[in-house]
Amino acid sequence: MIGAEAVSERLRRVGLRICEQIESGVFPRIEMPARTVSNIIYDPEVGIVRLGDRRITRSAKNVRQAKVFAQMLWVAAFAKNELVDKGRSCSLRDLFYHSFNDPAIKFKEQDESDRIVVELETILKLPRERFNILPEEKSSIFGDLTIEYTTPKSHAGRRVNLTSDPDGKNIGLSIATAKFIETSAEMVIAVEKGAIFRRFVEEGVYKRLKAILIDTGGQAPRFTRILIRRLHEELGLPVYILTDADPWGMHIARVIVSGSAQAAHIPELATPDAVWIGIWASDIKKYRLPSLPLTQVDKHRLETLMRDPRYSTGIWRRELEVFKKIKVKAELEAFSKYGLTAIIDKYLIKKIRQVEKGLF
Amino acid sequence: MIGAEAVSERLRRVGLRICEQIESGVFPRIEMPARTVSNIIYDPEVGIVRLGDRRITRSAKNVRQAKVFAQMLWVAAFAKNELVDKGRSCSLRDLFYHSFNDPAIKFKEQDESDRIVVELETILKLPRERFNILPEEKSSIFGDLTIEYTTPKSHAGRRVNLTSDPDGKNIGLSIATAKFIETSAEMVIAVEKGAIFRRFVEEGVYKRLKAILIDTGGQAPRFTRILIRRLHEELGLPVYILTDADPWGMHIARVIVSGSAQAAHIPELATPDAVWIGIWASDIKKYRLPSLPLTQVDKHRLETLMRDPRYSTGIWRRELEVFKKIKVKAELEAFSKYGLTAIIDKYLIKKIRQVEKGLF
Repeated sequence: MIGAEAVSERLRRVGLRICEQIESGVFPRIEMPARTVSNIIYDPEVGIVRLGDRRITRSAKNVRQAKVFAQMLWVAAFAKNELVDKGRSCSLRDLFYHSFNDPAIKFKEQDESDRIVVELETILKLPRERFNILPEEKSSIFGDLTIEYTTPKSHAGRRVNLTSDPDGKNIGLSIATAKFIETSAEMVIAVEKGAIFRRFVEEGVYKRLKAILIDTGGQAPRFTRILIRRLHEELGLPVYILTDADPWGMHIARVIVSGSAQAAHIPELATPDAVWIGIWASDIKKYRLPSLPLTQVDKHRLETLMRDPRYSTGIWRRELEVFKKIKVKAELEAFSKYGLTAIIDKYLIKKIRQVEKGLF
Repeated sequence: MIGAEAVSERLRRVGLRICEQIESGVFPRIEMPARTVSNIIYDPEVGIVRLGDRRITRSAKNVRQAKVFAQMLWVAAFAKNELVDKGRSCSLRDLFYHSFNDPAIKFKEQDESDRIVVELETILKLPRERFNILPEEKSSIFGDLTIEYTTPKSHAGRRVNLTSDPDGKNIGLSIATAKFIETSAEMVIAVEKGAIFRRFVEEGVYKRLKAILIDTGGQAPRFTRILIRRLHEELGLPVYILTDADPWGMHIARVIVSGSAQAAHIPELATPDAVWIGIWASDIKKYRLPSLPLTQVDKHRLETLMRDPRYSTGIWRRELEVFKKIKVKAELEAFSKYGLTAIIDKYLIKKIRQVEKGLF
């Protein structure tokens, strides 16, 4: 993963290109991939959602675009000079209000500044979290991994082992950008619920399976997806994802694996090799889990996923078909019917061994 | 704060009383304060919401209550034997599913098991978090406080300083029940938003003000309220609460100070001495903050608070009246108009000095 200096340099180069254009007497412009629906492509080779070849141009020449162009440069300069270079962070909301300082830049609605941040992501091919514009969501990590912080400056160089905090460590800017120093882990297990994550910590799953545990807290925040990808790429660890058996849980896994349409412009948010280990629709009957009927909203969601190219083949298609047939769903907690540790002893360990052998 | 052994003992005594009743030949019954609306009282002396003197009885004699009575004993036994004594935790959802094991106990809907957990809280006068039935919400803490974990067993006796994690440490069961070993802190600052919390960490507010920082993540989860109260009572630290200037933010502060109607049966969730340091409605004009008009929902909320006895006097009343008059609201991020650190330099520090002098 590139560090803060490299991010700063990418931002600097955006400005540099503008300066060069002005010096050579042309109206400055910036080209970037189009984020229109028709240019969002599911690439079955790599297994991720990405942007196609269509490109658009933002130019200072067009009167209607001139202000937006200036706003984008202002955001890029702010991200570089005030955030990345100073080791500071802010939220999308902060950024919006900060623009009130300058009448020439001031955004009318937060939608406008949010949109520009997305364009900046597209230009830099980096999530906004990497230039320190942060979300509010919470997700946590636990396991034998020693990291070394690089930010904020007060903590740069400090090392900590991620088993030190039994409540799990928040996955924020500092962990997502830390260096990985040492680990005994042999896999990553991401689970969508804090209660199950906590159980895995309490029952020592991290020791028994030599696993780094991640609580995604529902749909995984982007920092968490960045970190999962890094754990896979930099440490070579296989990634297993455990969710509720419903169309929503399944999609939590799918987004970690393939990325989302909203973030098709940022490659580093997907982990194509990550494996969804259930709870599959077909497990509901197999394990005789307490289940609930799919609601109208669930069924509608199911139909949407049936039309999504990410769900056209393999286990994804198969399990959607099972949901359609059985018309019920089950939660991770449903294993508690068999005792609090049943999800570990009766399910998790066996399922990981099973998928390791390629049995889906 | 009482430890796990004492919680276990309280649970054991519930069972013991039942045994004694049976042995002396009477139908077993349990008495507890009524949680009806008319028995929820705001006590202006202490400044908290609590239950009045009306009591109800659950009895095994009444045929309609017999099953509920058995279910309550089952939940109490489960909490003691499977959770507290074994150093395990579970969620409300887990508990519901776990009952599926036993046809005599099995709950039809989670509402039923949730209600029994609340009754058990009422009997024990302890939040369910203390008998290890946990919520999913996330909130974090940062500051110079060395704690010693008591749970889970794998971590009991380990010490850690809460400045070790710049993303903030999750406030979960382990931190909420840890022993406080050492601190240089002179105050606690609770803020409702992660982005502002992060800024306070980055800008070293914890050093400048010798403060323990808490991100409540919106309405403070109960673990967070438990911890805030402990920091105040056990360490004698003043507590300051910083929120958005709107009826919702104000109520986040009010609940930390006075507790909530839903939790009127648990005294250890309120910190009557905690101080709301804004953003007050009157600060919006004073600091010329960017503001937004109150929506219909905001106005409706305002009217509800106007009728709430917790808002009948002092600063609470005054600021509600100001909101009614100015009809606008402002967020913490609004200070970013003056630069990212303005909320610290222009507001936080001055406001704390002001309220320390009793100037409201």
